[in-house]
Amino acid sequence: MHFSVKPIGLVHVNLSDEEVKAKWLEGVEGVIEIYEDYAHGLEGIDGFSHLIIIAYLHKSLEEQRRVLKVKPKCLKLLGVDITRLPEVGVFSTDSPHRPNPLALTIVELVEREGRYLKVKHLDLFNGTPILDIKPYTPSRRIDRIKLPLWYQKILEEVKAKHPLLKDF
Amino acid sequence: MHFSVKPIGLVHVNLSDEEVKAKWLEGVEGVIEIYEDYAHGLEGIDGFSHLIIIAYLHKSLEEQRRVLKVKPKCLKLLGVDITRLPEVGVFSTDSPHRPNPLALTIVELVEREGRYLKVKHLDLFNGTPILDIKPYTPSRRIDRIKLPLWYQKILEEVKAKHPLLKDF
Repeated sequence: MHFSVKPIGLVHVNLSDEEVKAKWLEGVEGVIEIYEDYAHGLEGIDGFSHLIIIAYLHKSLEEQRRVLKVKPKCLKLLGVDITRLPEVGVFSTDSPHRPNPLALTIVELVEREGRYLKVKHLDLFNGTPILDIKPYTPSRRIDRIKLPLWYQKILEEVKAKHPLLKDF
Repeated sequence: MHFSVKPIGLVHVNLSDEEVKAKWLEGVEGVIEIYEDYAHGLEGIDGFSHLIIIAYLHKSLEEQRRVLKVKPKCLKLLGVDITRLPEVGVFSTDSPHRPNPLALTIVELVEREGRYLKVKHLDLFNGTPILDIKPYTPSRRIDRIKLPLWYQKILEEVKAKHPLLKDF
């Protein structure tokens, strides 16, 4: 069984994929264009400081969709020795390699001009199709969360190397 | 252009759709079954207190996918007079009526038994196909958020009627 989804817009980022990857933690600035057919769906969105973007990682290869266990490779960019990290299931991570290549990105809405949303903290490549936008409302903020030991250890190691980095 | 996505599992809830709807704010308890083919993707998930579930609202009708503006009808259940509410774009709301019927639900992971996740705070009907699971990590918690005036007014009205309800 399969379901069909369609792009409602796309990401514009003035950077190469490698440049976006290198900034995965803080994200980059960019513009989300919503296609004319869906532009009315944006009414009332001004005033939300943050939006949740669901995107389709169209550059994901069929073989990457068969991956079920990964090592958090993006941590290599932060100087973490990933040979010591455990291999974990893709649903325990934010890896782009997963059965359905869906990305969930929380962006800051800087301003809107019609059907163009200027945003911060994008971790999506130029041209990535957008499937949905939802407002970041108070119920999305879970104050008391717990993390597995393996994830806590990664956070600690990264913070030791980069004290000013925010949590991820 | 369309993309194809496939269920990795489904929701088991021992309640009718109407009963789930009536509890949309606090959510209900249920079990998320991940299909055997994807079960290895769950490794390492124990210890995360909360998970982000992306589901496909399979009961959404084609005509509901053409809706671009809505009134938050679920508020009627809380006694809000929705005739006074503004009609807003679907991307400014969590409405199930949207071009791609994707749901984003944050659940509390109570316990895992193999490929079965017992969870709290589900707002999905029994049988809803699951497309993806991501861990709720610190970066998903945005502390300083702003909301549009129309949304703030709804929150205030609901809180006046139901002082003990949490934000939504």
